[in-house]
Amino acid sequence: MADTEIPAAEFTVGLIQMACTTEVQANLDTASALIASAANKGAQVICLQELFASPYFCQREEVDAFDLAEPIPGPTTDRYREQARDLGVVLIVPMFERRIPGVYHNTVVVIDADGTLLGRYRKMHIPDDPLYHEKFYFTPGDLGYPVFETRFARIGTLICWDQWYPEAARLSALGGAELLVYPSAIGWHPREPKPIRSDQYNSWQIVQRSHAIANGVFVATVNRVGHEGPFDGGLDFWGQSFVCDPMGRVIGTGTADQNEVVIVRCIRRYIEDQRRGWPFLRDRRVDSYGALTTHGLGGLGLTRSASWSDPGV
Amino acid sequence: MADTEIPAAEFTVGLIQMACTTEVQANLDTASALIASAANKGAQVICLQELFASPYFCQREEVDAFDLAEPIPGPTTDRYREQARDLGVVLIVPMFERRIPGVYHNTVVVIDADGTLLGRYRKMHIPDDPLYHEKFYFTPGDLGYPVFETRFARIGTLICWDQWYPEAARLSALGGAELLVYPSAIGWHPREPKPIRSDQYNSWQIVQRSHAIANGVFVATVNRVGHEGPFDGGLDFWGQSFVCDPMGRVIGTGTADQNEVVIVRCIRRYIEDQRRGWPFLRDRRVDSYGALTTHGLGGLGLTRSASWSDPGV
Repeated sequence: MADTEIPAAEFTVGLIQMACTTEVQANLDTASALIASAANKGAQVICLQELFASPYFCQREEVDAFDLAEPIPGPTTDRYREQARDLGVVLIVPMFERRIPGVYHNTVVVIDADGTLLGRYRKMHIPDDPLYHEKFYFTPGDLGYPVFETRFARIGTLICWDQWYPEAARLSALGGAELLVYPSAIGWHPREPKPIRSDQYNSWQIVQRSHAIANGVFVATVNRVGHEGPFDGGLDFWGQSFVCDPMGRVIGTGTADQNEVVIVRCIRRYIEDQRRGWPFLRDRRVDSYGALTTHGLGGLGLTRSASWSDPGV
Repeated sequence: MADTEIPAAEFTVGLIQMACTTEVQANLDTASALIASAANKGAQVICLQELFASPYFCQREEVDAFDLAEPIPGPTTDRYREQARDLGVVLIVPMFERRIPGVYHNTVVVIDADGTLLGRYRKMHIPDDPLYHEKFYFTPGDLGYPVFETRFARIGTLICWDQWYPEAARLSALGGAELLVYPSAIGWHPREPKPIRSDQYNSWQIVQRSHAIANGVFVATVNRVGHEGPFDGGLDFWGQSFVCDPMGRVIGTGTADQNEVVIVRCIRRYIEDQRRGWPFLRDRRVDSYGALTTHGLGGLGLTRSASWSDPGV
């Protein structure tokens, strides 16, 4: 989609949520079958879930899990490049990237509809919580927030924990993204009570809908399903992949527990409609945002020190 | 609340939403009566709606409306300083500030519970839309995002249009705010159909709830009620002032059309609970946020130019 072309009135997103087994080959095959099904249903931009090739190994810290990583390009990118070309679809493929021995990333590659490997995004925000030991496995990303100009849409790729950071969404939108995709692996601890589950799910959905609203973009999240780990522990991945439009309206959603393809048409005009109706981007006070590059203002922001003695009357 | 003191387990917020008349004195009196009522019900931090002293004059561009502005300190701050001291409550008082002839701001002052004028915040993000001609009236704020250390809570003050900007919420949180307050004047065009109204209201609430979630703070919004302007035009201010907790759960809300005091207890521990359970602030990639001080990346973010030739394998 070159800048001089008139973009199509819409693009169609396909989200693939699935339960993973310990057999990598089986997971790749399941993904391929669901990709074919999504393309058959009209999807043009098809996105897989975070680390879809394996169980979510970050529940524990195990050195042997690094065997799951592979270089980019490599066998997995070869496989999906071929499928993208055959089907004429854009594929967003999460990978456990082996960069050099000792440097591994939580990455997505973006493959254009002609099979070209357009580029990669390396997860910038790395969590570390009980059952999500990602800081053990992944070096934080060093490629910023790229936007990929694919045949069907300009796509900002972000990954899971990134979804809690308005900074990441904003930078992707400023880079020209029409669609933000968030391959994810988020779940409940099986012993957590239902109200907490609901609160967590709502927080997750609200924050992502807010990125759509604040930036006037489509947002698509793909989340795995199924239980992984010990019977009375581990994680219940909550699925419920969804797409929302630039006003934050949820326009397609998956179940909490089924392998599934979620197909959603995105009407491109809504992006500019939203940005004209509520022109938030116009009024950003870029002169005042410098301290966003800090971890806190150490009390400097407190008026007791800045004080009432305002010379500017 | 000095740093060496142990903060109270909770603080209680009172939001005052009201319909305004063209009589400034009557509006001030209504506000005073509602403040007294809120204090009587246990409110410690009481917040009035944006430009509460008058109708929302920004529906039209009229030079005479500048007569409504007044200096700070001035008669209005004197009046509410006295009431704050008498009742022992913190007051957040929106003002149309006359700084010098020709320089006017959309401002709030923060009055501590002993009557001290702690400081002011000048609205940073100024809208300009049909019926919201604020760029005609208000010079954009030049005081950044102060946080006020009051007797009962550390408060970040933001105003209406600011609520759409995650940057503003983040900077207030980084400055130490426990509570963000958003005095507002947002409404529907009477001829807008119901689904649009509902979408707009939802967007507004979702964005503000997301600030609570992303930053682990309480968020309180105070919005005016009543119709202002011609019978078949003007604005229906949608009220529905609310408070949400640091997980984004709405814990108190007002009606869409009544003068009302909304009283909400805020349990301080929830702030740190949220930030420990979901430690988003820990993992911010402050090294990667520099471009937030720009209006767009002009295609630089697009991978076609940044390109696939990644040296970092």
